[in-house]
Amino acid sequence: MELKSWLASADAPHSGFPLQNLPYGVFASGSEDHIGVAIGDQILDLRACARSGIFDGLPQAIVRACEAPVLNPLMALGTTSWSTLRRRLTSLLDAQAGREIQRRVETHLVSMSGAVMRLPAAIGDYTDFYASIDHATRVGEQFRPTNPLLPNYKYVPIGYHGRASSIVVSGGTIRRPHGQIKPPEDPPVFAPTQSLDYELEVGLFVGPGNPLGQPIPIAAAEDHIFGLCLVNDWSARDIQSWEYQPLGPFLGKSFSTTLSPWVVPLEALAPYRVPEFARPAVDPAPLPYLQSPAPDRAAIDLTLEVYLESNRMRQAHVAPHLLGRSNLRHLYWSLAQMVTHHSSNGCNLRPGDLLATGTVSCPDPGSEGCLLELRRNPEPVRLPTGEQRRFLEDGDRVTLRAYCQQAGSPRIGFGECSGTIAGPA
Amino acid sequence: MELKSWLASADAPHSGFPLQNLPYGVFASGSEDHIGVAIGDQILDLRACARSGIFDGLPQAIVRACEAPVLNPLMALGTTSWSTLRRRLTSLLDAQAGREIQRRVETHLVSMSGAVMRLPAAIGDYTDFYASIDHATRVGEQFRPTNPLLPNYKYVPIGYHGRASSIVVSGGTIRRPHGQIKPPEDPPVFAPTQSLDYELEVGLFVGPGNPLGQPIPIAAAEDHIFGLCLVNDWSARDIQSWEYQPLGPFLGKSFSTTLSPWVVPLEALAPYRVPEFARPAVDPAPLPYLQSPAPDRAAIDLTLEVYLESNRMRQAHVAPHLLGRSNLRHLYWSLAQMVTHHSSNGCNLRPGDLLATGTVSCPDPGSEGCLLELRRNPEPVRLPTGEQRRFLEDGDRVTLRAYCQQAGSPRIGFGECSGTIAGPA
Repeated sequence: MELKSWLASADAPHSGFPLQNLPYGVFASGSEDHIGVAIGDQILDLRACARSGIFDGLPQAIVRACEAPVLNPLMALGTTSWSTLRRRLTSLLDAQAGREIQRRVETHLVSMSGAVMRLPAAIGDYTDFYASIDHATRVGEQFRPTNPLLPNYKYVPIGYHGRASSIVVSGGTIRRPHGQIKPPEDPPVFAPTQSLDYELEVGLFVGPGNPLGQPIPIAAAEDHIFGLCLVNDWSARDIQSWEYQPLGPFLGKSFSTTLSPWVVPLEALAPYRVPEFARPAVDPAPLPYLQSPAPDRAAIDLTLEVYLESNRMRQAHVAPHLLGRSNLRHLYWSLAQMVTHHSSNGCNLRPGDLLATGTVSCPDPGSEGCLLELRRNPEPVRLPTGEQRRFLEDGDRVTLRAYCQQAGSPRIGFGECSGTIAGPA
Repeated sequence: MELKSWLASADAPHSGFPLQNLPYGVFASGSEDHIGVAIGDQILDLRACARSGIFDGLPQAIVRACEAPVLNPLMALGTTSWSTLRRRLTSLLDAQAGREIQRRVETHLVSMSGAVMRLPAAIGDYTDFYASIDHATRVGEQFRPTNPLLPNYKYVPIGYHGRASSIVVSGGTIRRPHGQIKPPEDPPVFAPTQSLDYELEVGLFVGPGNPLGQPIPIAAAEDHIFGLCLVNDWSARDIQSWEYQPLGPFLGKSFSTTLSPWVVPLEALAPYRVPEFARPAVDPAPLPYLQSPAPDRAAIDLTLEVYLESNRMRQAHVAPHLLGRSNLRHLYWSLAQMVTHHSSNGCNLRPGDLLATGTVSCPDPGSEGCLLELRRNPEPVRLPTGEQRRFLEDGDRVTLRAYCQQAGSPRIGFGECSGTIAGPA
């Protein structure tokens, strides 16, 4: 029998937050921040639940973690605790729950439309990978036309450390950064970027960490993944291309990174697991430490979309324009491979650390996860208003969305990851 | 009249911690961590001072910051508060202080030799620069023989994000990391690094931060620097050289970074300020946003040393062997330029963030800050035991030291930054 909530909005078509999802987030409640779970158009306030006795019988560590102002303590508890809490939340919100339970739970629901969301966790370290071979190839063509895909790509899950301090939650403005820009024939100038871009990415939050010096074997990697969110790794391409040699991207990225507020538990994505990326026969097999113990379900069938809305579109009430539709299943390197590779030198991951995939693109046109890839096309992007885009303009609002969908099941949504470009300071 | 402490050990030759220094650190006190100040061979327990009333009359924010288990709250207060606290500490420890003050202060002294030191701050983000042109040139020769110094170097203070989680305090062991290593003619293998190296660096701790989107102008940059410490940016050169294209160093660095426990206030270094690096006439001037308002004192005359002690040397009681002696004054980019460049795109720095210089080398032989640079020499490093080194062996203990010294003044020391290589897990 299909799981259904007593909350009608949870079953609205395309709600994205049915009983099968139950993503975690943090929202402002007066002067405090509370953990909540999204259900339909509501947020269930977990701190209120914890304090009201609705969680009685759950282990104390879980109840205490639900009272925290960030998800880090819950992330640290691990899969058994996550499953225990998820079962309790499911039973509380299930249509089979009694009238009395429903009445008690209802008092702890908060309307999502009026809620102010926070970052889900205190992010200690943020790492960005480069796991889409289609993205790596197309971007490589722009920076190194003769040498797009470097020889290490098919062996190493390439990644780099990102900036944690400038990660912000969906919904704000992104100020166009200044930086050094190098005209082809002249010395560099310090000016606002003229090639501001988005990157459509998925992030994973680390659950339990590993001690320094103790790598995480690939068979255990998914036990260290709490859940997934959307990441927009805003990029200033002109700053990036001048600065990135030899130590990698720095100020071209660190001015801001936007996260969606909801973290979808890995458990909610179990029905959408698919086989790992099928490497062409000419490609090398991953080195043994990166070989998945369950290649049949190493990837996730998660549709990703990016939309643009310009100032003029907003004024004319034109719906946001789809710029790209991609899918996480096309990643060359899986989430588990990222976790294991990251810790393979003994580097310690901590609860609440964020690992992002890098831009997720697919082989086919229309799947590009950033504007830089679209520059291959002879024509710029054309918006419904007739406006053209090579890069983002002030006033542009970029929104990432994602969902898992199967015939006969409700959609598992990720909510929105959006930001609006503001002019330079 | 020369400042002198009533504590005799503060004036011992080469104590490094005279009354003119007063560096801050964090030490374990029972089950708690306390802030302390190094003086001679003792640590003054600032939490104990704060609670005893010795700080009466100081602003409450300063007293509270002294009770914290990390330096972040004190770092956040800014230069006026730092100076106020420093004046009080100086007067308490001054030979001119009365017998009664001395008696009260003495009860809060802890022997340095028995103290367990902690990291000085909770480090939100760690950034590593590449500010020594001599290092950049010599390393560039190894990775890009035809193209050692890239065209951006003399315009951009090159830096990259490092890993904060694996920063450890001086004194522990560093486990030799595994990683992908690429033999010239064969596919990569996953194995313990065979080219483990140290990097002799200086780190600065950020004081007050800047809000996201609000760059720090160069004239204000030093107000955001709390103080300096030593940094050993351990590096696995074989892992690094295979992975670093195109996104920069990652696992070749992130297995561990070691910090010295004492943070020397910028104020203590004021007598050792010297003119900024004299760029050759053919070099471009820094872009205006990077031009120092006080070029006559933009650099610091700080001597840096790195020593190696092998297992055999330790057993034979042979003194550690000097591998390199360098000086911070040779940096191509100043500390203020690093702060301003880092925030120039609006990136927010936070109190307790760590910015490191990158390896500090000078033009002359004998000043190399890492073993990779010494590979230019036809002969490997020869230790007093007759042992040879191209890279670090298990059991090797690397110690960084630093000091400012002027005729007639006591030496301003930085303490030790050390780590001992342990075999792979």
